[in-house]
Parts: sequence; C-alpha cells; structure tokens
Amino acid sequence: MANYFSSNFTLGILGGGQLGKMMLYETRKFDIKTNVLDPSADAPCRIACDDFTQGDLLDYDTVYHFGKKVDVLTFEIENVNIEALEQLEAEGKKVYPSSKTLRNIQNKGTQKQFYKEHKIPTAPFKVFQNKNELNEAIVRKEFHYPFVWKSCTGGYDGKGVSIIRDAEDIIPLPDVECIAEKLIPFKNELAVIVARNPKGEVKTYPVVEMEFHPEANQVEYVICPARIDAAVAEKARDIATNVSQTFKHVGLLAVELFQTEDDDIIVNEVAPRPHNSGHQTIEASYTNQFEQHIRAILNLPLGKTDSKAGGIMVNLVGAEGHTGPVLYKNIEEIMAMEGVTPHIYGKKETRPFRKMGHVTIVNEDLSEARKIAEKVKKTIQVISE
Amino acid sequence: MANYFSSNFTLGILGGGQLGKMMLYETRKFDIKTNVLDPSADAPCRIACDDFTQGDLLDYDTVYHFGKKVDVLTFEIENVNIEALEQLEAEGKKVYPSSKTLRNIQNKGTQKQFYKEHKIPTAPFKVFQNKNELNEAIVRKEFHYPFVWKSCTGGYDGKGVSIIRDAEDIIPLPDVECIAEKLIPFKNELAVIVARNPKGEVKTYPVVEMEFHPEANQVEYVICPARIDAAVAEKARDIATNVSQTFKHVGLLAVELFQTEDDDIIVNEVAPRPHNSGHQTIEASYTNQFEQHIRAILNLPLGKTDSKAGGIMVNLVGAEGHTGPVLYKNIEEIMAMEGVTPHIYGKKETRPFRKMGHVTIVNEDLSEARKIAEKVKKTIQVISE
Repeated sequence: MANYFSSNFTLGILGGGQLGKMMLYETRKFDIKTNVLDPSADAPCRIACDDFTQGDLLDYDTVYHFGKKVDVLTFEIENVNIEALEQLEAEGKKVYPSSKTLRNIQNKGTQKQFYKEHKIPTAPFKVFQNKNELNEAIVRKEFHYPFVWKSCTGGYDGKGVSIIRDAEDIIPLPDVECIAEKLIPFKNELAVIVARNPKGEVKTYPVVEMEFHPEANQVEYVICPARIDAAVAEKARDIATNVSQTFKHVGLLAVELFQTEDDDIIVNEVAPRPHNSGHQTIEASYTNQFEQHIRAILNLPLGKTDSKAGGIMVNLVGAEGHTGPVLYKNIEEIMAMEGVTPHIYGKKETRPFRKMGHVTIVNEDLSEARKIAEKVKKTIQVISE
Repeated sequence: MANYFSSNFTLGILGGGQLGKMMLYETRKFDIKTNVLDPSADAPCRIACDDFTQGDLLDYDTVYHFGKKVDVLTFEIENVNIEALEQLEAEGKKVYPSSKTLRNIQNKGTQKQFYKEHKIPTAPFKVFQNKNELNEAIVRKEFHYPFVWKSCTGGYDGKGVSIIRDAEDIIPLPDVECIAEKLIPFKNELAVIVARNPKGEVKTYPVVEMEFHPEANQVEYVICPARIDAAVAEKARDIATNVSQTFKHVGLLAVELFQTEDDDIIVNEVAPRPHNSGHQTIEASYTNQFEQHIRAILNLPLGKTDSKAGGIMVNLVGAEGHTGPVLYKNIEEIMAMEGVTPHIYGKKETRPFRKMGHVTIVNEDLSEARKIAEKVKKTIQVISE
C-alpha cells in the first residue's frame, strides 16, 4: 500500500472553496501533500495546500494536465470537466469519486433515472429537454400542479429549484433541460452522509435534520442527531447505505432525504463530497467528514462515525443590503456562548446570501444546543465594513 | 476592538514547529492572517501560514524587525530573543505571553525563585552559577544525595534534567548554571493547562496524568482526565490558577505538577504556550488548546474547557536505530482502531527519539481508551524507509 504520510505522494483536489479548505486541515494533520486547482487566485484553499494551480475546472486540458501531475484526484465541487476525468481513469489514474459516479449525479435527470432503475425510493418525476416539452406535458395533463421544477444541471444551494403552483410560475423559468417532480408533503428534510472506500468498507453518520425557518422556508439549523424516531433513523441510514452501494461510489456521499407524512423515506438528491449537512462533524463526531473523505479515497480504514455530543450547525451567509469587505459583527458575543465555534471561510467580500462561514454549537444536551443556536443566529451578522 | 477575521490584522508567531503548525489550523479556521518566523526552510509551519520568514529566533534584529511587521506577537517556543520582545513592548507592540512572563520562566532558577517568593508550593531547591559551586555545596553538606539536577537554561523534553544519587553522577554534568532540587517521592505527575486573556478571564482544563512506562521511566500516555480523587484534582486546578494569576500571564500556561505521597500538590515547572500535555484537547475538549491560545492572546472570550469524551495521547517518537526519511509503519492498522487519530508533524527525517507526531485515542470510557492506547503503542513504529 502507498505511503501517504510525509511522503512524495500527492493528492489533487479540483476546487479550492471552503470544502477544500476544511479538507486541507486534515491533509495537514496527516502531512499528505496536496495540489489544488481553482480558477480564483484568492480561493480559500490558496493557503494550506502544498501547491496551488490557477485554472478553469471546466476546461478539458486544464483538468487533464492537472490530473496527470497528481497520484490520486478528488473534487470538492461537482461542476468539473468530466471528460478529462474519464480520460485520466482510462490512463490508470485513480479518480475518487469516479467519473462514472459523477456522470450519474451531475445531471439531475440522470440521477433520478438512476434511482428509478435501481428501485431506490424517490418522488415520481419526468425529464424534459426544454421548457416547451414541459409546457406541452402540462397541456396534455401528463403532469399536474403543484410540482417541483428542477434544472438538470447547474443547480447549487437551492438555486435551480422552484415550486410551480400554476402557469404563471412557469414563465420566469429558464429554457433548460429540467425535471418535474411530484410535490410530496414531508414532515422532515433529513440527510445521511455515507463513507465508502475502494475495498468496500461502508459507514454512515447519524441522521441529521434540517430545521426550517417557520416563515422564510430557508434552512436555519442542521441538527445532529435528527429528532426523529429510532426506527425512522434506521430506515434512513439503510436507504442511504443502499444508495451508496448502488452507486459503488468512493469517498463521501451526502444523501438528502425526505421523511414523508407516512414516515416513508424517499431520496431527494445526493452530493458526492463533504457536505454542508456534515459540518457539525468537525466538533461533534469522532471522525469529521473531511478526515473521513480522505480516509475513504485513500483506501484507509474508515473512522468511527458516532457523535461525541449533540451538534448544531448554523450557516453564516451575507446579510441583505451588504456588499463589500466583510465584517463579522458580534462574533465575539457568540464566542462567549458555551460550546460555540465559528468557522470563517476566508472570502474577503460579502454579498447578500453568500456562504461566508458557519457556526457549530456543541452540547451534551441537544435541546440546550438548540437554544444556544437560536441566540447565535440572532446575534451574529455578516455585513460589510 | 480589533477585527481579526478576514481582515488585515496579522498575528506573528515565533517558531515554526509542530505547536505552531497545530495553531495554524485554528488561525485558518478563523481566517486570521499569520506570519511565522523560523530558522528552518522546512519548518512544519511553512505550509498554512500566510507569510513565512526564515530567520534566527535568538537574533535581536531578526526578532525585532519581524515583530515590527505584525500586530500581535506570540511564540510557540520559549527559546527566543527576549530583549527584542522587551523593546517591541516598550514601543507599544502587544506581545503575549509578555516578555516579563518569559523572563520569569525561561531561566529555571528564576522560575523556582518566583514560586518561592510568591509562596507557590514547589520542591526545596538551591541555585548554583556553575558546577564548582554545586560541588562545594555538597562538600559543605548544604545539599544531600539523592537530588534532582536541572540546567537553568536550554532544557527541553527531559533533556537538562538528571537524578543525582552520588558523586559519580555529577561527573558527566555540563558546567552550567543549574538548580539542585530535593527529590520528593510522588504518586503522580500531573498537568493543568490554564488560559488567561488580557481582560483577566481565566479557565483551566481538566487535570491530566502522565503514565510512565513501568521500567523505562518515560512518559507513555497522557491521560485526560487524570485518574485521581476529585479533591486532589480540584486542588491541582486551584494551584494552577494561582500560578497563572501570579504570573499575570496571557495565553496558555501549562503547569506541570507532582502529587506527593501525602496528596500534596507541588509545582514542577511551567511552559507559557500550548503543550504536549494538551494535545488530546484537539479531539477530546470542547475547545482545543490551540484555539484557546488564539482566543486568549487576542482578548477574545475563552472557550469551554470541559471534555466531550475521555482522551489519551501517545507521542510518536523516532525508533532507535533509524535515521533518514520517515515511514510510519502500521499507521493503517492503528487507524482501524476505534477513536484513533494520528497527527503527523511533517518532519521528513526521523532520528532516534525525535518527536515526529502523536496519536489521540478518544472514547466515552476512559479505561477502554487506555486499552486501545496500549494497542496503538505496540503497533505503530516510526522508522526510516
């Protein structure tokens, strides 16, 4: 087996954002050499990687030549040139997660089709090549309001998703390949992170729950463990494991799920990388998701996924009406609260709703953590100077 | 109050070894800009700091000019030019811990004298300017065998300390300023890390215990919490707090203590920085010692010092008979054990007894962690390729 620690082995990472930045804490901890490719000279990963390459993640030649220089290639963002990954694999390069997994995930239509073919529970859907096809299907009453519209590509952080209640809602949609999905009322939005290494060892993290703002329909808190019945949690972990096995993916797979009103669990979508819903693992778990990703893609033994304490994560997003050099107002007040750790991603400029960091609240008592999380949310503000 | 997060504020760190490297995980987490000074171009801190300056830590001009460039100055090693720190402070630069604290600690004779003056319990001792003075005191029977000899300066990791049982033991000692200390039989070697910020907020970590090898008289495990009576632990934390208050130090103070056979607690020595006896805090505590040091020196609120689980630390030192490019033999076997995290400091070359890394074992059940720690110790080996 390769010697990764303080050796000449090099891990290549496509994407230099905050997920990569947090992954680099772990490569530093293990002293694993890294090379990061990102288009931005100011990428959060610029510091703490061994080598930084500035370049376009969607350009075939850039990704191909970058991949040739490293021993194992991974990514922290799905939006990369997949043909280059395929060519690298064909030449024997280890790419984890594989280009095949990425192909099955990158396009949401393909992803849903994959679930259907493999009998993985998911909301009924139809794929449309363009807006016209969608409109015609509605006219032919093949699909009924309300439904969920999703762009097949390019969606991120809730962009590219709309709930369509009538013909008026269709007008502003872009003319792109899309899916229309049956709107299934759900009790809870859940997520399970699954880790799998090339030798097939699989571990799941405890189920987390997204708590939404009662009015704004925005995730406010990621709560670990989810406040659900043990039987439902077990079902969610089983389904997530099944999804992972079916994809035969290597690395982390974040599986987003809905708990329906009948306590069924259906798969919403997956991300083949460390995920926003796993940030609380840094403080709350025996093995954080970033270390686990590194362990998985290097075929090292997977770490324990249990929690040491209850964990809640609050995203730090840019406040509305503020654009410019960032100021984390009242950060010192939240640091005085018990078990509170802010993570600052290192983006110098804030913009409305830009993900600038997150805060973790850890406590033996989850309901106490939930109270502190609310205070955190009310106190800190991401504004411009 | 200053804005430290994603701002132009710069923290200067004297020393670029493993303690600095682990401190940089925290400055990255908070996106605090850093500049590190170290003589070695291959220092473990080279990666993950914002700026790296190569230079001599004991040279007045180097340290002075480095200090002028940063906003707050700290150190991860005591062996730095103290006159430069004094001049920087005189010009208004914030240096934490202060040069005064460092003056009181750097020389072990001065440090012991400080305890005596402030009625802090410590073993009786005498200071000698050279070997001749020591020999004469023994001839005059002012001091009796056995005693502990300590070099006043330059000691590190047990070097510069000897137990003297007869005249023969004195012969190999170097001719330096030294202290002779009464040999007090003790049950346990303990340590308490105290954090204190400029506004005077103070927090102590739980007491840790050093478990020695039954024959080799070498620390094998750092165990948190120490397996001692609650009353003794409370006394140890109180004495450590008193030491910290008396020094009025800012930052972390690692207070090494002995628990005597009568359950008295006496101070052995202190280190004004993150410490080997606090490494398990990375995985086991709500706030790890490196984050706490950053919080303390920047006058931020101190974090919670409780443990999330039991933690044990095992040092990874170079095996005897191995010099050259390092190989962490069987590291994958220990990574398969429950709750085990290796930390690799990034030194490319191993030498006998060189500190190359450490391993943390975390478990809800401390006695289970202790069993796993023993397996870790028996399994991993730091050898040359």
